[in-house]
Amino acid sequence: MLVIGEKINASIQPVAEAIAGRDRKFVEDLARAQAEAGADFIDVNAGAGKGTPEDQTASIEWLVDVVGSATDKPVAVDSDSPAIIEAALGKYRGERLMINSVTAEPERLASIGPLAAKRQAWLVALAMGAGGIPDNVEQRLAACEVIMNHLSRLGMAAEQVFFDPLVLPIAVDSGQGLVTLKTIEEIKSRYPGAKTVMGLSNVSYGLPNRKLVNRAFLLMAAYAGLDAVILDPLDAKAMSLAKVADMLIGKDSYCKAYIRAHRQGTIVD
Amino acid sequence: MLVIGEKINASIQPVAEAIAGRDRKFVEDLARAQAEAGADFIDVNAGAGKGTPEDQTASIEWLVDVVGSATDKPVAVDSDSPAIIEAALGKYRGERLMINSVTAEPERLASIGPLAAKRQAWLVALAMGAGGIPDNVEQRLAACEVIMNHLSRLGMAAEQVFFDPLVLPIAVDSGQGLVTLKTIEEIKSRYPGAKTVMGLSNVSYGLPNRKLVNRAFLLMAAYAGLDAVILDPLDAKAMSLAKVADMLIGKDSYCKAYIRAHRQGTIVD
Repeated sequence: MLVIGEKINASIQPVAEAIAGRDRKFVEDLARAQAEAGADFIDVNAGAGKGTPEDQTASIEWLVDVVGSATDKPVAVDSDSPAIIEAALGKYRGERLMINSVTAEPERLASIGPLAAKRQAWLVALAMGAGGIPDNVEQRLAACEVIMNHLSRLGMAAEQVFFDPLVLPIAVDSGQGLVTLKTIEEIKSRYPGAKTVMGLSNVSYGLPNRKLVNRAFLLMAAYAGLDAVILDPLDAKAMSLAKVADMLIGKDSYCKAYIRAHRQGTIVD
Repeated sequence: MLVIGEKINASIQPVAEAIAGRDRKFVEDLARAQAEAGADFIDVNAGAGKGTPEDQTASIEWLVDVVGSATDKPVAVDSDSPAIIEAALGKYRGERLMINSVTAEPERLASIGPLAAKRQAWLVALAMGAGGIPDNVEQRLAACEVIMNHLSRLGMAAEQVFFDPLVLPIAVDSGQGLVTLKTIEEIKSRYPGAKTVMGLSNVSYGLPNRKLVNRAFLLMAAYAGLDAVILDPLDAKAMSLAKVADMLIGKDSYCKAYIRAHRQGTIVD
């Protein structure tokens, strides 16, 4: 299970302050802590709708520069603005990076698709179009089809695409957990080379013990075919379960990675 | 998720002593504690190979009598001996019970099958024959087919059969988690009326943090289609996750059971 560390996000108040104040050490520490905890990618989100477009551009440029120099893990540039993504790409000095995210909306595909193709970036693709998150598997897959067709025409390989099946709160509709899990299965079946990625927390919106519910969902999603997860790598329980998940579905030969993590004391219950 | 409480088992030393000493209160308390913790069935295992056949028969008769009077949850008579099962059936005064277990071995089907059919019992059927636990899905399903054919001829409905897909330690063969999960899926697909049941602990044999691994496997198995689990109902973490599992796969409308359990303080992380 690939882990995308979610902590450098301006929707978290101390992070927003660190970005605004250009607190280099704060951001570097947060990047390194996530990398050391096992993150494979470091997500960076400079916030949306705050400040002028110039402010936002300057913030993402600063962020990818700081994070890129603090760790050798690839950065995931997290924005739905083509201008911000383009600015980040211009400043990022690492070899490979991830762009998070595109949807099936034509204007986003037309603007973000070529940026990802040109830079040979991994691209997170949300299984939705202009109408918001569909409540059923079929419409999510239809969005994936539109995206895959478009990206193929741009020369992108399925291996570069990380489809996000999306998840709606089960407190609102008890069937939504299964909708997401079945969407993952179908994506893996239709596009064997493509990857899947997901944030977990929407599933538990409105419920008590949210982290418990999120972690349980991670295990089911891993069996359904989830390749990558966006989470807090400093959550030792979640990271432990990501390793257990790999082991249970045969992705950890001889249980080597799990046993090594246990010996390092990082498996917690 | 149906829960079969596993604690009244003579392989556990204090239980063996309570059975030998006919300590009625000990066994009653253990039955009631499991029922109160949410067990749907109370497994009773009087031990194998200890004492004369007459001793063993007397022990199981005593056990089903004590457990049957202590709780109104159905008993699961746990033995591979037709004589012991028959003795238990003779003494059990409850309406419905479970027999645990039969295999595809002809002599066991021929002896235990009719006992289950006559009593309209639920029957746990292990996905194996005389050769031991197969290491692959196909041979486990072949065993299920032999069993289902035999039980059908005896007039048993699929709904009475709880197939156990069986699990071998992933520490020995990393692919065995998937073999079990795929076996569950296939059983549910081939026999839509039949149920599936499993004990979890074999999966983690030889690994550290076994309970963590077992609970993670429970979540994956629930998504694969597991209907019932044999575990310790006094393990609050496992019981919590059984409820979370039901909720995530849409078996808990409006998350009612989960929220009720949370209000009762029984959801633990």
